[in-house]
Amino acid sequence: MHSGEKEGKYDSYVVVHNIAKRHNVGTLARSATAFGVEEMILVGRRDFNAFGSHGSTSHVRFRNFPSLSLARSFLKERDCDICGVEITDGARAVNDHPFRKSTAFLLGNEGTGLSDKECEICDFFIYIPQYGGGTASLNVTVAASIVLHHFGVWAGFSERAREGSKFIVADKPFKQTKKNTCGEAAESVAEERKLRKENHTNDFFDQGVKDEAPSSLLDALFGS
Amino acid sequence: MHSGEKEGKYDSYVVVHNIAKRHNVGTLARSATAFGVEEMILVGRRDFNAFGSHGSTSHVRFRNFPSLSLARSFLKERDCDICGVEITDGARAVNDHPFRKSTAFLLGNEGTGLSDKECEICDFFIYIPQYGGGTASLNVTVAASIVLHHFGVWAGFSERAREGSKFIVADKPFKQTKKNTCGEAAESVAEERKLRKENHTNDFFDQGVKDEAPSSLLDALFGS
Repeated sequence: MHSGEKEGKYDSYVVVHNIAKRHNVGTLARSATAFGVEEMILVGRRDFNAFGSHGSTSHVRFRNFPSLSLARSFLKERDCDICGVEITDGARAVNDHPFRKSTAFLLGNEGTGLSDKECEICDFFIYIPQYGGGTASLNVTVAASIVLHHFGVWAGFSERAREGSKFIVADKPFKQTKKNTCGEAAESVAEERKLRKENHTNDFFDQGVKDEAPSSLLDALFGS
Repeated sequence: MHSGEKEGKYDSYVVVHNIAKRHNVGTLARSATAFGVEEMILVGRRDFNAFGSHGSTSHVRFRNFPSLSLARSFLKERDCDICGVEITDGARAVNDHPFRKSTAFLLGNEGTGLSDKECEICDFFIYIPQYGGGTASLNVTVAASIVLHHFGVWAGFSERAREGSKFIVADKPFKQTKKNTCGEAAESVAEERKLRKENHTNDFFDQGVKDEAPSSLLDALFGS
């Protein structure tokens, strides 16, 4: 446990393989920090865009591995289960809490799901029950958030302190030792500004939540 | 129950008041249909953008009311509890399932939360526990999805049939009697196309999930 914000015997990890739609990493990071994720592990590409993170990329530790097998070795050294979030024949419903110890959640591609290679490194699978007929799958950040929420409930993480109707945001714990070393950082920042303009970010849902500096991209390599 | 896709004694509703960041309605609709929501109720503005819905706006019934009190009257006629999703002193954790019957979930503005006026129509409040210190709140679609997921578990909704690693998508149940009657429909379509271009929608997470026609905006007024 890096931060002491949550207490618990077990940790959760998020594993993302070959990100192409990099915008999702920002929204993922926001949920990851909300649900006390220990580290986000990017396999393959390590450049990402912090759009949608509301500054929370500075609160999550990122780690990069060039291959799935190296990521697996690292996680096994930490005595983690690797859990694929995917509808497979033996998959258990997430609300049954089929967890045993620290767990790394491998997220599938929304379109094609987890590949055979990705499935091979998984110890077990969970899925999120759906009840309506309007969509074949959930948005990846939504799916990850539901899973991470349940893991926190199961692991008995301590709740973050609140002030009024908000959880208290901590100081940024991670120094950016090599700022913007991720591949397309400068380009991403420009892209984010453009997108923000397009999206009228100051509107309803997000008003009052001011984005922090969009350049808060983390050096994707920590301690390895 | 309009569709017979989920079975259960109770229904869930989503209530959104004065949408300004209309893009969120599309992503909300996708989760709403996944979790068997009976209707999405827009209070105030009734124009919205289906971006992010992946066509699922055609599977959710939308209803519009000019005021919160009219929305409340409608929901009370249907014997619904109105539940504010907000951190208040008496709010219960969503995973405790403090539900009693059919429930309409009123979503707060991410920045400022529910207003006093919004709180007044609520029968009780729930919140989603957070464990880490990196963000004051969750994205509104993420929060709504976790809540709707739990309601479905509590209510015992039947799971949607699956094929391989996907839930089966139904035929579109709603005829669009007055297509694009929502205010800025044409403009929204153009805006969506532009955004899609900017976002490189064919990338990783969404590849393979082809968007349906972006013009699938619903007439926001049904049967009232």
